[in-house]
Amino acid sequence: MIEYPAGTPGPHVFVDSLDAMHLDADDLAHLSKSLRMRDGDPLTVSDGQGNWCRATFSSSGSLQSNGTVHSVPARKRPLTVGFSLVKGSKPELVIQKLTELGIDRIVVLAAERSIVKWDDDKVGKAMQRWQRIIREAAMQSHQVRLPTIDALVPAIDWLGGTDVAIAHFGGNTIDASHTSIAIGPEGGWSDDELLAATQRVSLGTTVLRAETAAIAAGTMLTAASEHTQSDGG
Amino acid sequence: MIEYPAGTPGPHVFVDSLDAMHLDADDLAHLSKSLRMRDGDPLTVSDGQGNWCRATFSSSGSLQSNGTVHSVPARKRPLTVGFSLVKGSKPELVIQKLTELGIDRIVVLAAERSIVKWDDDKVGKAMQRWQRIIREAAMQSHQVRLPTIDALVPAIDWLGGTDVAIAHFGGNTIDASHTSIAIGPEGGWSDDELLAATQRVSLGTTVLRAETAAIAAGTMLTAASEHTQSDGG
Repeated sequence: MIEYPAGTPGPHVFVDSLDAMHLDADDLAHLSKSLRMRDGDPLTVSDGQGNWCRATFSSSGSLQSNGTVHSVPARKRPLTVGFSLVKGSKPELVIQKLTELGIDRIVVLAAERSIVKWDDDKVGKAMQRWQRIIREAAMQSHQVRLPTIDALVPAIDWLGGTDVAIAHFGGNTIDASHTSIAIGPEGGWSDDELLAATQRVSLGTTVLRAETAAIAAGTMLTAASEHTQSDGG
Repeated sequence: MIEYPAGTPGPHVFVDSLDAMHLDADDLAHLSKSLRMRDGDPLTVSDGQGNWCRATFSSSGSLQSNGTVHSVPARKRPLTVGFSLVKGSKPELVIQKLTELGIDRIVVLAAERSIVKWDDDKVGKAMQRWQRIIREAAMQSHQVRLPTIDALVPAIDWLGGTDVAIAHFGGNTIDASHTSIAIGPEGGWSDDELLAATQRVSLGTTVLRAETAAIAAGTMLTAASEHTQSDGG
């Protein structure tokens, strides 16, 4: 039986190493000021590499381990959601939610019909912002690993992968055989992109906004994967 | 094989009756101005009672039916998500997403540890706003029915229902036997609420924000229900 920090009292933080656990300045400020933690309060600590332990808070920023180090094995095949770059703050929402759900890899796609076009400078700045969102969401949701993020990846290239399914009305039901789902832009996939895709999965009988589709795909992938694990698969 | 408007080209609107289809002024403005529809363009029309048909747009606001009226049967047991009232615009986000996903009934709960407390006047105004969000989201996602919404319902009462499961770490896997899921406030359920609940379901191994949990619960309920339907259950 794998133990997860989510079942354990107290907030959750990341440190560089579980051998000598030091909080970084921002995390220390967050725990002591926003969460008003006091010396001796319980929390869980992870190295972001799958390992975690119970610990007690100290306002010095050096944490005392309080028990065994648990290791959560990585999924054999990483769960991936790719979504086409959309306007405004929706990528932030999608990235936050996919991280909370425990998706392993996030791919921000440049689809042929994406309305948003970004240069390298804008992508670089967005990546810094997204990495911060991922770390915060991973702490908040008590993850032991941070998802990786790739941006911007041309959709036509990514869709050709044999393990990638596009979300499409009338596609197959998502099950544990699926590991990667691609969500199209509001304008839909281009003909070339549809041809490139080798698999189609269904997200249901309604038309979802792009960001809802990405969150639903993440939910279905993790749910299907967890059912398999709990069945001993 | 049930036909859904989601598989059909064009936008989707609601009218009072499919016998004489007249667009209301806001919908006409939306279709002609925002979506730039022209006379003869295809769309789908629903009465919000499970019935829909293909039609052609007319700038007069009177639509011509273009084929058979299809009927989508209601689910035998309505799928319901209850969530505790949370701060800011998060209820709007949850209500929009649950509508898109095709949830039948939305219940806004007053939990003992809800930080937000509203008087009747505030609830009344929020209900008007939420009804607008539901109608817009149902149009945008091509629904044939609008979910009902109840607010505010004391959680302690609702959780005692035999068909209601609370989302709780370590609960059962969601399957087609589940119809109603309750999401607690950020502060968690009170002891009395935990005692009142007769069933527990799991949303996975991570800690989800309240709004993410509600969207994930809606995704899992509709997915489990659709699997059953497609299996002939």
